[in-house]
Amino acid sequence: MSTIAAISTPPGVGGIAVVRLSGEDALSIADSIWRGVRLSDAKSHSAHLGSIMQDDGSVLDRAVATVFRAPNSFTGEDTVEFSVHGSMWIQRELVELLCSHGAEPAGRGEFTRRAFMNGRLDLAQAEGVADMIAASSRAAHRLAVTQMSGEFSRKLDDLRARLIKLASLLELELDFSEEEVEFADRRELSTLADETIAYIDRLTSTYKVGRAIKEGVPVAIAGAPNAGKSTLLNKLLDEEKAIVSDIPGTTRDIIEDTCEIDGILFRFYDTAGLRHTDDLVEKIGVDRARQTIDRAAIVMWLHDLSGIDSEERMADIRNNMASNAEASHIIVHTKADLIDLAETKMQKEELSYEEHTISSKTGEGIEELKATLVQAARRGIDKQAELIITNARHQAALTSGAEALKRARAGIDAGLSADFIAQDIREALHHTAQVTGQITTPDLLSSIFTSFCIGK
Amino acid sequence: MSTIAAISTPPGVGGIAVVRLSGEDALSIADSIWRGVRLSDAKSHSAHLGSIMQDDGSVLDRAVATVFRAPNSFTGEDTVEFSVHGSMWIQRELVELLCSHGAEPAGRGEFTRRAFMNGRLDLAQAEGVADMIAASSRAAHRLAVTQMSGEFSRKLDDLRARLIKLASLLELELDFSEEEVEFADRRELSTLADETIAYIDRLTSTYKVGRAIKEGVPVAIAGAPNAGKSTLLNKLLDEEKAIVSDIPGTTRDIIEDTCEIDGILFRFYDTAGLRHTDDLVEKIGVDRARQTIDRAAIVMWLHDLSGIDSEERMADIRNNMASNAEASHIIVHTKADLIDLAETKMQKEELSYEEHTISSKTGEGIEELKATLVQAARRGIDKQAELIITNARHQAALTSGAEALKRARAGIDAGLSADFIAQDIREALHHTAQVTGQITTPDLLSSIFTSFCIGK
Repeated sequence: MSTIAAISTPPGVGGIAVVRLSGEDALSIADSIWRGVRLSDAKSHSAHLGSIMQDDGSVLDRAVATVFRAPNSFTGEDTVEFSVHGSMWIQRELVELLCSHGAEPAGRGEFTRRAFMNGRLDLAQAEGVADMIAASSRAAHRLAVTQMSGEFSRKLDDLRARLIKLASLLELELDFSEEEVEFADRRELSTLADETIAYIDRLTSTYKVGRAIKEGVPVAIAGAPNAGKSTLLNKLLDEEKAIVSDIPGTTRDIIEDTCEIDGILFRFYDTAGLRHTDDLVEKIGVDRARQTIDRAAIVMWLHDLSGIDSEERMADIRNNMASNAEASHIIVHTKADLIDLAETKMQKEELSYEEHTISSKTGEGIEELKATLVQAARRGIDKQAELIITNARHQAALTSGAEALKRARAGIDAGLSADFIAQDIREALHHTAQVTGQITTPDLLSSIFTSFCIGK
Repeated sequence: MSTIAAISTPPGVGGIAVVRLSGEDALSIADSIWRGVRLSDAKSHSAHLGSIMQDDGSVLDRAVATVFRAPNSFTGEDTVEFSVHGSMWIQRELVELLCSHGAEPAGRGEFTRRAFMNGRLDLAQAEGVADMIAASSRAAHRLAVTQMSGEFSRKLDDLRARLIKLASLLELELDFSEEEVEFADRRELSTLADETIAYIDRLTSTYKVGRAIKEGVPVAIAGAPNAGKSTLLNKLLDEEKAIVSDIPGTTRDIIEDTCEIDGILFRFYDTAGLRHTDDLVEKIGVDRARQTIDRAAIVMWLHDLSGIDSEERMADIRNNMASNAEASHIIVHTKADLIDLAETKMQKEELSYEEHTISSKTGEGIEELKATLVQAARRGIDKQAELIITNARHQAALTSGAEALKRARAGIDAGLSADFIAQDIREALHHTAQVTGQITTPDLLSSIFTSFCIGK
């Protein structure tokens, strides 16, 4: 295998930067540009101060080289990490220098890919590495740690064990198939298949929450025109993201942005105000608003306390709320600064929805609203006691696995012969093995690792 | 001294990031968040795989911690470098975690400042570190390496030695001053002072070139309106930087941008076409163009070969060329694609200027022009055989030193008494000692290190 080199630290200028070199010839290539102790003789996990020499005999940089010897490195290969001064010039020159001395520029995710090839990580763990780097909230970080540490892979090993047991029960029958005897206890087979299907279904049902944690819990900001939706969005994001005006119908596109509150990433969607309109563009906006509401995990229904037709609009909101029964709904009474609250005690007929009274202008009630959002998001997360699926690829593979297994289950009921049923169970095994990478294809690996950054 | 922590790699997301911890308590603070070998017991320059633990007992990251023990670290203090996964979340959390365990967030340049305080670097070397990180061309990089390696500081030690010799010759006289005897051989004093003044003048005269290397060699693109100046700028930068039109007088502001050619950074200034005009804005533009030409190290005079009054304009260029006698002048005949060159053989009456014929449209002659620019810049650099000053602070200190010494020299001529002369020489010593930091003030240190990035 070739020796690869890349800048592994974030792109740009900084105090220091790290260039990583990994492969069979890493030590000899490193020595060819190094003035200091001979790195080929250095112990694993030792750091050395020295100079990186250019071909013209001049010093590129004083640097620290840390040696990791195979198999005790991230990739499992001999690795040298050069910690250099963080100028763009030095970083670029060093990679070029290493490449002119026999290394190749590393492709995206190639270090992690080698770690996988060398059995240092399984595929789900490798994907955990990418998720870890991309994590932008405490909750997403925690999921990635679980996945990277192999906890997720162990759950899948359980699943594989169940499927293999199913297969072996059938094999027993197949071995004696010429004698036309049904050896396998079909009742035991059915029970085991049902349990396994339930197990996979439980896993795949967590994906919605998993994706919400990774990409942000989707929160729709809904309500009548001019209810203060864009103003609330800007307040929550603490920036002037959406254009705010007194003219009803100012927002037409869905304005979207994320922000972390208390360790959870939220993805807020500011929507067009729901009303009948003849303006074509606004009409499209209203349709999109309804779609966004239907897909949200949390919907904040904004109700303008100061509005003249306040009662009527409140009724309208209640009518609209039914559209997404799975979501958590929060009623938010806005523009509290404009009215005397004592005079407009809201009638709280229903306790099924949280209600908040806020003023985006004065900030009143905003912290309380945020706390409610966090609670609502947590309820969704805590429902998922065990493992959470966050990766679309895993979800697809497990769903395919469950489908194959359901076919097998139907086959048992229909009294099909063991070889038909075994075929479906082998397919289920195939799909689940793809998750951790016991079965891979070059295309699959490419599609996974090219989503990594260079240098990882 | 407190223990400091900061992200040392460039800001952003990458494969890995490095968080540095330095100070008396670095090892114990590191151990308080580390699950793995006890870092307090680890040898200097050893790297260890382990886990960074959050206060709630969960794993923040699997990481490599490298231990550098005082005084064999960059700062001269005990240092731990954590190499973590490069997510923003992990980087930020780790610094916060270290700070909640007793570290303080490092200020700008604080690691380098400590290296200076602990005698690991002198001040000029520390500034070399910052220049090294900011270097964006091979030439600038090389100057920074020279400065960081201490070659520059050794030259200044020579200078100090001369000044101290001068002072000691005077001291001899002062010791016996009550006897009103002129002991010091005033001729020897004069010679030594003259030599030292010449030495400093030689150093300070390199500053113009030094700054050009660091910030880019200033190249003015001059000529009549519509000679193709903006088109050439865009061609050299390989982007649509300046607005180009057929209307003479399109460019009014000075358009400025840098680009590296063959290891040298150039700073190109596209200027307004030189002509008489009644347009007030254009008039200001023309004035600025003249100032830019006067300050440039290289002036490219563009002459439109296809123009009807070509001869006249060529004469105009020659008249204008005298304004900056120190600069290298290059005559560039443009729009070669529009004419038949065989018919318009230029008369090369004078050989004192390089001439080029180009077409920015077809690219003809551009590479040759670039080669000439590089040659012209090199001539300026190579004139400076020895050391080159690149730092405004060094330039100011040395200029002040030279002035004090010149006063001393005048005092010798005027036959002033030794204590007056000694006063000036002490002042010269004071100024030169500031360059490498034998003499510093807190303000000076602050102003130097706050220009560093955090984490260096």
